[in-house]
Amino acid sequence: MSLRPEQLRALVENYLDELSLTAELGGLAEPVRYAIGGKRVRPVICLATGDALGLPLDHLLPAAAAVELIHSFSLVHDDLPALDDDRERRGEPSVWAEFGEAEAILAGDALVAEAFRLALTYPTADVARELVGATLQMIGGQWLDLRGEGDRDELHRLKTGALFSASVGCALAAGEVPKVEREPWREFAAELGLLFQVVDDLLDGDGYVLDVGEDGARRLADEAAERAHARLDPIDADTDVLAAIVDDLAARTS
Amino acid sequence: MSLRPEQLRALVENYLDELSLTAELGGLAEPVRYAIGGKRVRPVICLATGDALGLPLDHLLPAAAAVELIHSFSLVHDDLPALDDDRERRGEPSVWAEFGEAEAILAGDALVAEAFRLALTYPTADVARELVGATLQMIGGQWLDLRGEGDRDELHRLKTGALFSASVGCALAAGEVPKVEREPWREFAAELGLLFQVVDDLLDGDGYVLDVGEDGARRLADEAAERAHARLDPIDADTDVLAAIVDDLAARTS
Repeated sequence: MSLRPEQLRALVENYLDELSLTAELGGLAEPVRYAIGGKRVRPVICLATGDALGLPLDHLLPAAAAVELIHSFSLVHDDLPALDDDRERRGEPSVWAEFGEAEAILAGDALVAEAFRLALTYPTADVARELVGATLQMIGGQWLDLRGEGDRDELHRLKTGALFSASVGCALAAGEVPKVEREPWREFAAELGLLFQVVDDLLDGDGYVLDVGEDGARRLADEAAERAHARLDPIDADTDVLAAIVDDLAARTS
Repeated sequence: MSLRPEQLRALVENYLDELSLTAELGGLAEPVRYAIGGKRVRPVICLATGDALGLPLDHLLPAAAAVELIHSFSLVHDDLPALDDDRERRGEPSVWAEFGEAEAILAGDALVAEAFRLALTYPTADVARELVGATLQMIGGQWLDLRGEGDRDELHRLKTGALFSASVGCALAAGEVPKVEREPWREFAAELGLLFQVVDDLLDGDGYVLDVGEDGARRLADEAAERAHARLDPIDADTDVLAAIVDDLAARTS
């Protein structure tokens, strides 16, 4: 019996709440923990992928948390005054606004390093390899964004798509799924990432909405959701929960 | 026939010059490459350790470069206005002074990620594990330094000692040296790191010199060099080049 998305989310929350950070980080643990907020979309996808493959959820939690920490790192550094200069994140002060700039720079650094520490708790190095590829793409995407370069699709692929792909990819790596069997999963992850991004832009009235209008963006989202469902069909795994996540992402209002 | 330290340094320089960065980093490659300056102390120690064990140097170069990239990352972020506010590094503009703050933040992030990418080119995950442990300690050390907390020995252990230890540790990991045989090497690395730090403080007139005076610091350095030699004695490997590195570090004037 598969767990529902909200049950997977509760597992992630609990794991992150109880996560032991490296002792030497000392007081930096406070801004690091503060930074790990959010809806847990990516770690839930990671857990649901592993669950679909019949992997024990305990085995997936470090990978799921690692993905979330990389996401948090990117937000903490992107919010800095020198980058997006965002004083708020999810209605609360951003990390630099709450703790200071130096603290936010170091907290972001610590989040990356803790993410790799978690990814390296697996016997295989493949989980960490998935994560490092996505991290490099995200940094490249942020660079393009800073320079006002790159088209919408490229920015999306680097800044959002890469980590959605790794959310699925880290579960496959943790489960040591043979590389040849990973491709259909990756195609699913790409559609899921696009769906997430377009709906995000619909909710914020920016991004794809500026390019193709609200109706156009809604159509893009619906098509991505349809393709995501279609990508799941041929996969030989119990993908009901992943299908439910597709529907949740398409219908979300926050 | 072992290579001399300056020959190892030339190998590192050449490898770093020709290093292919991740394509998606795009124009960020420029500040990243600019940041990778310095004396190559740590990667030379990594290569010399591997050479002493009879490992092929080609096999060690990614690990040696990864250590240097983590060192570069720490300097790029530490120099930022919000942290040490250093406009110069090695007589040249620091990365943020040359390219801008946002660029320096992202370049530092990219250096960490590229370091882990290189460390993850090995079949074993142990090289990356060595590196992540040191990285977390360095970040913790920088936090203590920022807050004006921590005594001299603790700051040294976290900010400098950890990466010296990883310089040796990454070579042992790349060579898949059994864990039980690594302890004498670690003791050697700890003395080498202390020797480097105290001589650095002698050259800059700060750190340990402020605590114990110039004569006291010279004595600390000489004792660390003696102990480093003594730690090499029982190690069953061709450690002549490492012994030469100890003497070079003790006698260095820049």
